[in-house]
Amino acid sequence: MMNPLSQVPLERLRRRTSVKWRRYPEDVLPLWVAEMDVDQAEPVARAIIEAVRDGDTGYPAGTAYAEALAGFARSRWGHEIAIERTAIVPDVMLGVVEMIKLVGGDLVVVTPPVYPPFYMFVRSMGLPIVEAPLKEDRLDLEVLERTFQLIRAERPVFLLCSPHNPTGTVHSADELTALAEPARTYGVRVIADEIHAPIVSPATTFVPYLSVDEHGLSLMSASKGWNLSGLKAAVAIAGPAAAGDLARLPEEVSHGPSHLGAIAHTAALREGGEWLDAVLEGLDDNRKLLAGLLAEHLPEIGYRPSPGTFLAWLDCRNLGFDDPAAVFLERGRVALTSGNDFGTGGAGFARLNLGTTPEVIAEGVRRMAASR
Amino acid sequence: MMNPLSQVPLERLRRRTSVKWRRYPEDVLPLWVAEMDVDQAEPVARAIIEAVRDGDTGYPAGTAYAEALAGFARSRWGHEIAIERTAIVPDVMLGVVEMIKLVGGDLVVVTPPVYPPFYMFVRSMGLPIVEAPLKEDRLDLEVLERTFQLIRAERPVFLLCSPHNPTGTVHSADELTALAEPARTYGVRVIADEIHAPIVSPATTFVPYLSVDEHGLSLMSASKGWNLSGLKAAVAIAGPAAAGDLARLPEEVSHGPSHLGAIAHTAALREGGEWLDAVLEGLDDNRKLLAGLLAEHLPEIGYRPSPGTFLAWLDCRNLGFDDPAAVFLERGRVALTSGNDFGTGGAGFARLNLGTTPEVIAEGVRRMAASR
Repeated sequence: MMNPLSQVPLERLRRRTSVKWRRYPEDVLPLWVAEMDVDQAEPVARAIIEAVRDGDTGYPAGTAYAEALAGFARSRWGHEIAIERTAIVPDVMLGVVEMIKLVGGDLVVVTPPVYPPFYMFVRSMGLPIVEAPLKEDRLDLEVLERTFQLIRAERPVFLLCSPHNPTGTVHSADELTALAEPARTYGVRVIADEIHAPIVSPATTFVPYLSVDEHGLSLMSASKGWNLSGLKAAVAIAGPAAAGDLARLPEEVSHGPSHLGAIAHTAALREGGEWLDAVLEGLDDNRKLLAGLLAEHLPEIGYRPSPGTFLAWLDCRNLGFDDPAAVFLERGRVALTSGNDFGTGGAGFARLNLGTTPEVIAEGVRRMAASR
Repeated sequence: MMNPLSQVPLERLRRRTSVKWRRYPEDVLPLWVAEMDVDQAEPVARAIIEAVRDGDTGYPAGTAYAEALAGFARSRWGHEIAIERTAIVPDVMLGVVEMIKLVGGDLVVVTPPVYPPFYMFVRSMGLPIVEAPLKEDRLDLEVLERTFQLIRAERPVFLLCSPHNPTGTVHSADELTALAEPARTYGVRVIADEIHAPIVSPATTFVPYLSVDEHGLSLMSASKGWNLSGLKAAVAIAGPAAAGDLARLPEEVSHGPSHLGAIAHTAALREGGEWLDAVLEGLDDNRKLLAGLLAEHLPEIGYRPSPGTFLAWLDCRNLGFDDPAAVFLERGRVALTSGNDFGTGGAGFARLNLGTTPEVIAEGVRRMAASR
C-alpha cells in the first residue's frame, strides 16, 4: 500500500475546511492541531458513503463500534475488551468528563506537559488540578506516588495520557504497573485517555492501561488513527472492578455520539489495519526526516523521536524566544502549537504535527529556520 | 419534487442500523424515536460524500453553519440572526446544558408533557425541575406567570420547546410575547430548544423566540428537518442582551460538534429548502391520513393534528391501559413512545412518529387497533 502520508499535495490540502486549514491565513503552513493530512482510508470512506446513500443517518445503536475495537485490541495488543463493560460516548474528552463524574472525582492529577484540554475541561468542571510533571518525557513514578500520598481529597482522579500527548511517550507495562499500585494504595482512580493508542511505531508495544488496573476506566477512539476527528464517537471501557461505575452512566450520554461517526470508526477498526500500518511506516520515516532536518538546519532545537502519536515535541529553549510558536508563526509563517498551553514544562517548547507529507515537514523546518 | 416520505420501502428501512430500526426485534414496526424514514436530500448527501472524498474530516471551523442558518431564518421567517452572537455546539441538548451553565441556572421550569431529555439532562445537572403544564396543548400563560412569581431561586431558567414536542404545538407571537414579559419581570432566563423549527406546516408561521426576547438564548439545528441526528452539530444563538453570556462559552465546547455534521447541516439549510417543502407537504398528508385512520379504526383515541414537528400525540386514556405504548408493543408489535416519559400529563398518552411512509402509518394503526 502507498504511504497515505505522501498522497495529498498541498494545493488539495488548502481546500480543506477543517480548523487545521482555516484557522490561519493562506500564507501560513499549518503544523498544529491533531489532524492528519491524509485521504480517508478506502474502507472508511466506503462505509460512510454507503450509510449516506442508505439514508442511515439517525441515532446510534448497538455495540458494533465496541466490538470492532475489541477485535482490534485483541489482534494488535492481545488485550481482551469485555463488550458488557463498554459504553459509546460522544468523544474522548466528553467521555473523560463523564468518567470523572461517575467516580465522583473531586481533584485531578495530571502529568505535564500534557494535552491542553485536560486543563480546560477539568477547570470547567470546577475541580482543582495537581501537577506531577514528567521527568525526561516519562512518568515520574516517585513524584506520582508522593503526590498520591499527599493530596487531600475524598475521591482523587489521575488522568493518564497514553500514549502521551505531546511527547509521544509510550508507557511500558512496568511503568503502568508502578502507577496502578500506588493509585490503588491511596485510593486514586485512574482514567486513561488512550486516543492515540493505534498510533504507535511497530517496534514498540502499546500497553492498554486496563491490562494492569482492574479499577481503571479508559477512553478509546479511532479518531486519531484514521483522521476521524470530524466524525465524533468514542468508547468508554471499564475494568472489571469499575463496571459498577460505568453502569451508572446516564442514558442521555448515549444520545451524543454521531451515528455516522460510529459507522466510520467501526469500519476503520475492522478494515483499516493495512492503511494504518502504512501510516505508521510513514510516521517512522517522518520522525527520521524531522530529526535529520533539525540537526542540519536548526541544531538549537532538541527533539527526541518517540514511538507514539504523530506529534513531535520540540525543545526550543535554546532559541531564547518567550514563545517559540508565536515567533515561528509571525516570522516564518508556520503554525505549531505553543508549549505554553501544556502546563508546567511547556514553556520554551512547541508541538509539531508529523501527520503530513515529507514536503510539508521540509518546508515547515525551512520556515522555522528562517524565523531565527 | 417527489414526496420524500413515500420513497423508501420497508424492506430498505429494515436494513438501517440506527436506533429506530435496531432497538426492537424485526417483527416490531418502529414509530417511536424522532428519525424520519427518508433518503437523504440530494444536496446533503453530495456535500457529505464530497467532504469524505476530499479527506475533509478534521475538526470544525468557521461560521458557515451559522451563516446558512441565518440565510434560512431570513428567507423562511424574516428573522435576522447575528453571526457574532452564535456559537457552534455538539447538539441541541448539550447546547441547552451549556446555556443553563452560562446563565448560572439553579432551577428549571418546563411545560409538560415535554421531550423526556429535558428531565434527564436537567436532573443529571443536579438542578430542581418545576412543572408548569400545558393547557389543551398550549402554554398556560397564567400558570407560567404564577410559577415565575412563586419560585424561589437565584437564577431560574425556563426551558421552552418550540415547536412543542410531543404535541406539535407552534407557539404564536402573542403567546411568546406573553411568556417573555413575566420572564423579564421575574428574572427568569428563557432558553429555547427550537430544533423542530424547520418542521412547521406552510399554513402556520413559526416565530423564533429571539424575535420577542432580547435576553433569550436559542438552540437550532438542521438535525430534525433533514434527518441528520446521526451527524451531530447545532447552533446556539444569543439575543442582543444575552451576548455577554454566550461570549463566556468555554472554548472546549467548540471541540464537540462533528465537522462532517456541520458540513451536512450547512448544505441542508442552504440547498435543502425544496426537499424540506416536499417533506412538509408529505407530513400534512400524513396528519390527515392518521386522523382518518384513527377515526375509522380507533375512535377511542384522541388526536388533534398540529402544524409543528413530525410527531403525533395520541390521547389513549379511553383505551383504559396503564401504559398504552407498552400494550401496542406487546400485543400489536408496533413501537410508539410511552407518554409516561413526558412528565405530568403524559400518562395514558403515546407519541407516534409521522415521519414515515403512508403505508407504515396505515400498518401502524392496523397493529394498534389489533391491540385492543
